[in-house]
Amino acid sequence: MAAGDSDRKPRVVILGAGFGGLTAAKALASAPVAVTMIDAQNYHLFQPLLYQVATATLSPADIATPIRSTLRDQLNTDVLLGQVVSIDRTARTVTLDDGRAVPFDYLIVATGARHAYFGHDEWETVAPGLKKIDDATEIRRRILLAFEKAETETDEKKRRALLTFVIVGGGPTGVEMAGAIIELAKKALLSDFRHIDPASARVVLIEAGPRILPAFPENLAEFAASSLTRMGVEICTGKAATDCTREGVALGADFIPARTLIWAAGVMASPAAKWLNVESDRAGRVPVDAHLNIDGDKRIFVVGDTAAARWRDTSFVPGIAPAAKQMGAYAAKTIRLMISGKETKPFDYWHQGNLATIGRKSAVIDFGRIEVKGFIAWLLWGAAHVYFLIGFRNRLMVMLHWLWAYVTFRQGVRLITGSTKLP
Amino acid sequence: MAAGDSDRKPRVVILGAGFGGLTAAKALASAPVAVTMIDAQNYHLFQPLLYQVATATLSPADIATPIRSTLRDQLNTDVLLGQVVSIDRTARTVTLDDGRAVPFDYLIVATGARHAYFGHDEWETVAPGLKKIDDATEIRRRILLAFEKAETETDEKKRRALLTFVIVGGGPTGVEMAGAIIELAKKALLSDFRHIDPASARVVLIEAGPRILPAFPENLAEFAASSLTRMGVEICTGKAATDCTREGVALGADFIPARTLIWAAGVMASPAAKWLNVESDRAGRVPVDAHLNIDGDKRIFVVGDTAAARWRDTSFVPGIAPAAKQMGAYAAKTIRLMISGKETKPFDYWHQGNLATIGRKSAVIDFGRIEVKGFIAWLLWGAAHVYFLIGFRNRLMVMLHWLWAYVTFRQGVRLITGSTKLP
Repeated sequence: MAAGDSDRKPRVVILGAGFGGLTAAKALASAPVAVTMIDAQNYHLFQPLLYQVATATLSPADIATPIRSTLRDQLNTDVLLGQVVSIDRTARTVTLDDGRAVPFDYLIVATGARHAYFGHDEWETVAPGLKKIDDATEIRRRILLAFEKAETETDEKKRRALLTFVIVGGGPTGVEMAGAIIELAKKALLSDFRHIDPASARVVLIEAGPRILPAFPENLAEFAASSLTRMGVEICTGKAATDCTREGVALGADFIPARTLIWAAGVMASPAAKWLNVESDRAGRVPVDAHLNIDGDKRIFVVGDTAAARWRDTSFVPGIAPAAKQMGAYAAKTIRLMISGKETKPFDYWHQGNLATIGRKSAVIDFGRIEVKGFIAWLLWGAAHVYFLIGFRNRLMVMLHWLWAYVTFRQGVRLITGSTKLP
Repeated sequence: MAAGDSDRKPRVVILGAGFGGLTAAKALASAPVAVTMIDAQNYHLFQPLLYQVATATLSPADIATPIRSTLRDQLNTDVLLGQVVSIDRTARTVTLDDGRAVPFDYLIVATGARHAYFGHDEWETVAPGLKKIDDATEIRRRILLAFEKAETETDEKKRRALLTFVIVGGGPTGVEMAGAIIELAKKALLSDFRHIDPASARVVLIEAGPRILPAFPENLAEFAASSLTRMGVEICTGKAATDCTREGVALGADFIPARTLIWAAGVMASPAAKWLNVESDRAGRVPVDAHLNIDGDKRIFVVGDTAAARWRDTSFVPGIAPAAKQMGAYAAKTIRLMISGKETKPFDYWHQGNLATIGRKSAVIDFGRIEVKGFIAWLLWGAAHVYFLIGFRNRLMVMLHWLWAYVTFRQGVRLITGSTKLP
């Protein structure tokens, strides 16, 4: 702090109220600092369940909580709705899109990631990804509308394309989307139509690598693949999408006619590297040192999906919610130690595991030493997700929606909002 | 029916799955007819609770049910998603926006109403009305965003305008919106902000007539007005909006600076009169005879908000849900009688009453002979609305949301979706 400012509380600015940023803010609740939380949206989104909004099981409000509301009783914290446009590391200010400059003594950058199209941004309109609420309601709209249009389509080829859903990317999101769409088609929509059989829908999961769920042990990935196949999902590994159009997806010489494409193939970090004027890695992430700082600047932390933090020498801390939370908590703790003049320790990531659901009653979980699969894994997955949801209300609502969908086989949120035209 | 068609079941086409259309469809469940339900959306909307979506208490899915799902077990019924562009009364076909011509033997037109700006359609962008889900999420977005913008606005005049909410129109919708917004400001948002006091928000309810709730007995309207005033709503009667802009609303020489305007002043029926090539009344409604037919054409019925049906000689059947349901049921019953060659009776409207809520625990109900007001009326209102909601799931969810909001004073669905810019 500058001389003369000694009475002023150190200002901590947090960019992004995702898992990393929100954890950091909460960890600073009783600290002698003035916290400013800045986010482009007014809500914290529980992204792991976003695919259930996209597939009509949950409403957006079930997995989103107003940031203000979560931090309302934390009187040292201010919440600002705004979009970052630049960061001045020398003057220590963050500039927002409305021109405001927000000064900081410590900065935590936790702005997450968006999906990436590897140089094919033009695919976004035909193959939307799943990161925000508006993405999820758009994908829901397209899926439900495809069935509606198929119902009245008389051309058999067009009807097949309307009833074909291609998910590009075989990670957890791709697996979860594929499982949820096939169940929507085979169960929830079963008697709703008169001219088509929704159960005849084709769901294709494409993965460029040799197998789905590359981050999981091989036997769990195999279990997931055979479960999905049994449910009716076609899995297509070792083939990358070479073109995405309104007519379908090209895989080299092959072409799959499909009216609905969903992108789950890759993520690109937020433009934080550009704001901070540092070189990013190939995924757009900001390389950080063992203290999650950049260039040894002890006052700037980068956490969560935006950071490229080394782990086990050869790898990086994965872009998952628990990792972001640990990084956010670490940044907050380190700031507290610095303020009280104590020594800080490097960040030590504790990997709790990877998990992914396969439809309505199966999942795979890799705890490292222990692997769990099937129904028990699904129960654990459900319990963990409900536990980590923020707010009693959302926990209750999500449980009720799941119970409802489980008992009735029917997803309740089958609304087409916005336009009723396909793109 | 044409000769040679005697084996074919009579085709009943219903336009619109609102209260009138859906009631008619259900009443034809076991009739020897082939029903086609056509709607521009894929859901039936429980409009009486739409203001609670606009004011962040309920999620859209809580008050909307997929039409297909509601009619799935009714095997004589087909559901089509489509927008009507014209009706050929001679050829007996309905043409949809994708060019399809749907033939009918009987037609029930139940396409409802939109809000009307009395020749000032340019006001719609600054003063949206409340008829569809997308209207409600847009109004919710504007209300919540106004508080967000006020939090960072440094110009006192602009801040006041951001914290001023004007509702044009003092009917039930206007009263309900005014009560819900003032409670949102004074209760739900209370500790969420650091730089503004949400409780200082100004909510102004404008009514051109001499008093609010003109369709109610004077003492109930007075009760509602004094309740609203006590809650902090400013009521401004006898003044019509003469201009609506981004800066506020003009009432003749007066001007109220306000960044959020909501239109609840008038409705205009759907373009059914144009499709049917008949003269509409001033509110765009189709004049119908005692059998809800037009021009004595026994095969075409117009029901609900789209119809101008005489009632008690000097008046019209009101544009409320129970009236639409009665008209829909009448049309279905009359078609059944006609098919079995029995005599039909004219439509007889049974007015059950008018009701409106005033905030979180008061309402007014006019049952004709009996009038109820206050907490008891609010309980009756709540029970009636839950009872009339379609589907167990929605009933349960709405009750839980209400209980939650009632106990905590907090509306749970405070999400700003779509853009975070004010219009």
